[in-house]
Amino acid sequence: MALFKNLENLSELIKVAKGEIKGDILLKNVNLVNVFSGEIYKTNVLLWKEFIAGVGDEYNEAHQVIDLEGKYLLPGFIDGHIHIESSLLCPSEFAKLVLPHGTTSIIADPHEIANVLGEKGIEYMLRASENLPLDIYFMIPSCVPATHMETAGGEIEIRNIENLLKEERILGLAEIMNFPGVIFGIPEVLKKIKITKENKKIVDGHSPGLSGQNLQAYISAGIESDHECTTREEAEEKLRSGMRIMIREGSAAKNLEELLPVVNEKNYHRCFFVSDDKHPEDLLHQGHINYIVRKAVKLGLSPVRAIQMATLNTAQYFNLKGKGAIAPGYIADLLIVEDLSDFNINKVFKSGKLVINEGKLMVNIPHYEDLSVLNTVHIKSVSPDNFIIKDKGKKVKVIEIIPNQIVTRKLIIEPKVEKGEIISDTENDILKLAIVERHKNTGNIGLGLVKGFGIKKGAIASSVAHDSHNIVVVGVDNYSMYLAVEEISKMGGGFVVVADGEIKASLPLPIAGLMSNESGEKVIEKLKKLLKSAMDLGSQIENPFITLSFLALPVIPQLKLTDKGLVDVDKFEIVSLYED
Amino acid sequence: MALFKNLENLSELIKVAKGEIKGDILLKNVNLVNVFSGEIYKTNVLLWKEFIAGVGDEYNEAHQVIDLEGKYLLPGFIDGHIHIESSLLCPSEFAKLVLPHGTTSIIADPHEIANVLGEKGIEYMLRASENLPLDIYFMIPSCVPATHMETAGGEIEIRNIENLLKEERILGLAEIMNFPGVIFGIPEVLKKIKITKENKKIVDGHSPGLSGQNLQAYISAGIESDHECTTREEAEEKLRSGMRIMIREGSAAKNLEELLPVVNEKNYHRCFFVSDDKHPEDLLHQGHINYIVRKAVKLGLSPVRAIQMATLNTAQYFNLKGKGAIAPGYIADLLIVEDLSDFNINKVFKSGKLVINEGKLMVNIPHYEDLSVLNTVHIKSVSPDNFIIKDKGKKVKVIEIIPNQIVTRKLIIEPKVEKGEIISDTENDILKLAIVERHKNTGNIGLGLVKGFGIKKGAIASSVAHDSHNIVVVGVDNYSMYLAVEEISKMGGGFVVVADGEIKASLPLPIAGLMSNESGEKVIEKLKKLLKSAMDLGSQIENPFITLSFLALPVIPQLKLTDKGLVDVDKFEIVSLYED
Repeated sequence: MALFKNLENLSELIKVAKGEIKGDILLKNVNLVNVFSGEIYKTNVLLWKEFIAGVGDEYNEAHQVIDLEGKYLLPGFIDGHIHIESSLLCPSEFAKLVLPHGTTSIIADPHEIANVLGEKGIEYMLRASENLPLDIYFMIPSCVPATHMETAGGEIEIRNIENLLKEERILGLAEIMNFPGVIFGIPEVLKKIKITKENKKIVDGHSPGLSGQNLQAYISAGIESDHECTTREEAEEKLRSGMRIMIREGSAAKNLEELLPVVNEKNYHRCFFVSDDKHPEDLLHQGHINYIVRKAVKLGLSPVRAIQMATLNTAQYFNLKGKGAIAPGYIADLLIVEDLSDFNINKVFKSGKLVINEGKLMVNIPHYEDLSVLNTVHIKSVSPDNFIIKDKGKKVKVIEIIPNQIVTRKLIIEPKVEKGEIISDTENDILKLAIVERHKNTGNIGLGLVKGFGIKKGAIASSVAHDSHNIVVVGVDNYSMYLAVEEISKMGGGFVVVADGEIKASLPLPIAGLMSNESGEKVIEKLKKLLKSAMDLGSQIENPFITLSFLALPVIPQLKLTDKGLVDVDKFEIVSLYED
Repeated sequence: MALFKNLENLSELIKVAKGEIKGDILLKNVNLVNVFSGEIYKTNVLLWKEFIAGVGDEYNEAHQVIDLEGKYLLPGFIDGHIHIESSLLCPSEFAKLVLPHGTTSIIADPHEIANVLGEKGIEYMLRASENLPLDIYFMIPSCVPATHMETAGGEIEIRNIENLLKEERILGLAEIMNFPGVIFGIPEVLKKIKITKENKKIVDGHSPGLSGQNLQAYISAGIESDHECTTREEAEEKLRSGMRIMIREGSAAKNLEELLPVVNEKNYHRCFFVSDDKHPEDLLHQGHINYIVRKAVKLGLSPVRAIQMATLNTAQYFNLKGKGAIAPGYIADLLIVEDLSDFNINKVFKSGKLVINEGKLMVNIPHYEDLSVLNTVHIKSVSPDNFIIKDKGKKVKVIEIIPNQIVTRKLIIEPKVEKGEIISDTENDILKLAIVERHKNTGNIGLGLVKGFGIKKGAIASSVAHDSHNIVVVGVDNYSMYLAVEEISKMGGGFVVVADGEIKASLPLPIAGLMSNESGEKVIEKLKKLLKSAMDLGSQIENPFITLSFLALPVIPQLKLTDKGLVDVDKFEIVSLYED
């Protein structure tokens, strides 16, 4: 993003700064939070076009003068790592939800859509995020497909990365989750790092629990950050070893409280805030980066430092010139807040334009329509019989859910059998689980059993299932499971609750089977209805769709299910449902 | 500078970090100064080839183990802004002088040689600094020639900048001294900034005393740093406005003591040390960046912070990945020091090689020979008559030197006249001064008078005269002046002292008339003899060659002399020697 488009533009900006040409907007009597000097002081700020022209008491007029009567002026918040897909919203609707919270830039990792559509999915995200009053930068998903034990819809290969690195808004390579691949020196993985570095772009890490020589080896490859620290010791070791620490506080993983004590005056400029995943209802009700800033201040961090960690520190890591601070020539991404404790957002300026005023969106945000990312559900015709699990007179493995965690436990049980068929055992909460491959018409269906959902009838299904996003369905009977999968196929992806031979509730997610075209409010409304319907079936889980979405993720221990079968994650191999 | 050359290299580095392959050198029992976390702790550091492979107690063997028994290990020092030419040494000899002081990287501004040879001069500096155990990066001189009121040998135009920006070791555009050019929006100046920004490179500032709206305007153009702050208030204003502050402590300008109180825990990561100009004797006896670090600590700065400002902060501003810290994958530029007060350097490692051991250079540094930068003195044949200043029966303007300053005062006096000729008046210390154009055979000779040198006979001359580096000569009589200029011409540039019809002492500076091919020690020895000879003529000035070198600089008030004539700097125009 060039700070100025042409010489005329620059020379005019200079004249505005000198006071020779009238600026567009004067923000008068602000209490400026200066993220360079760490000071807060009263001054005036002059805007012209998308820029900050000057800061100082000398600036006293403009076409529009807004007297802010001592309210605080901060740089717009930046989220250093987020998966937009987790919001279930397309980029424009995502923007509408985060702008009122003061987010003006995000660095997104389009990992989910890449698993469905490969490079085409990332290109959609790029196009769908043009011309928004939210700057969306991207990192290229580094591990697509995630493993060989599942069928993904897309692949991101070296040649795709080479293509994508040319894009201005692509800042580098996203979280290298495949840390064993780095440590074991898999050429394919190292090559991805190499070409990113050659393009002078950034390589993000993802190395939960990595320590000692393995951590040193991972970092030696040129990996510059981590957002997976869960303990103070882990963050301290990674900081010392040169990594920038992204302190994550999202809908699922919440590390702020644990990690905040690590931050001190000597290292704070190497730490910043990220959300990683935010569910739509959390985005609407709780907030985004403003929520993290508020919580950090409540936990004892100084407000200025919290703001630095939500703005300048992030911009510096990603080498985003002209972003993350309030200074001449910088992009006028600005927030007005009433106080530095609740950080309630009074106004948001994006690129010099008032986009939020007292919670109200002041600009029209265009919706981007792209047919090529719709209709991504391609399954062979299914029938209830596809969900039959034959009894072999053997014990079977069962995936046991641990509430609020994405790890699972492996159980061995004697299954309930009827007419030579293993069936759901609602009394012991053992339900049938299936993963239906939905990208390439392979007809692959992985079958298994799961404990912990608690539903007593019907079925629940989703096309959001990390990382390959095949259809995941849990159910009491074959017919309900069949019906649920059929409905997802009809919707082109989404969430569904089925019972008594009918669709009780659904949320279509037609964009890659991951995102809605509807507004955040609409999506949240439908989600509520879905959760209510799931509870009606007896579900004990806060959000069964989130639980479902992690049951197909074969990199998280202990037992998972993919379209290729049951995966023993500790052994990192496909195993039989039946015990010998 | 790619951190690794190829995949084999990277994959081997990872294996060394994991402890699977033996590293080259283990630095055992060091007290590591961690510039990321601000901590100091005991550990071991493993080197492999030019890299740091890993840091940690787990590392216990290598082909060579050096037990450092608790000595301190720091990253190599970086000078963020220096003109190598001021040392009078070519890059390889400069390297020999600074390495023992722990400097392992510099960012040089080849402004002087560019004024003599244009792009060719910069290309020489690039080639002459290849394969040295000192990483020399360059910024492209932004203001060559400095003004239209003098004749320079070279020009740096837009097309030269475009060429040079392609070079890996060229990091951006050097100090934009022409701040009026920026503020008045001169298209040529803005264009230089624009192409540098488009190449994602850095633009350094130079804006002494600039404040308020003019400063805001200067910064709005995208200028990111300043090394010209002389007061606390100036540095604070510039910091707040988003500039990085280079705190300068060189041979001429010394700002550390004044500026250090500005540095605090909130802003220190935006400040770093530079020397700007260092004379060879200061480099040898006083030190370089280590001298600034030592002095800063004596003035009360914490040693870790001082080290951060001499390493990581500089590397981050210039986006030098893998430099300025001790971490896996980083270039092994390391210093061993005995304590954190005197910072006496025990050992220096450059790219994993021991280059300095107890003050002794351990590697052979090749000398780079390039005939194309020699023989740059091209003058029309001169005779003593060329130095005649005719009397017009009018008062004349005299340049008055202010000791230890580069500004001068304008005096108006009744000249001493003999046979219709204005002559030197040693009694009142009014001497004749001439600038002889030496690049293009124009025959231009600017004539004037100067007060303050104190010499009673002979002449002193130099081909180092900022910014155009024509020959500057001060003398008592025409013949001595002629002889001095002739000798400089014969040497292809240099310093000379003439008296009694003979050469009393000289220092040839054959490289562009600015730099010697000899060692620092030799140059210092010859300089000493020159200064002694100048004193023998009656010189009152500590170093008359430095004073001489600023008398032709028409951007520094009040009265200067160029080959085109006397310049009234306040009026920014050529004026007559004679008063009306």
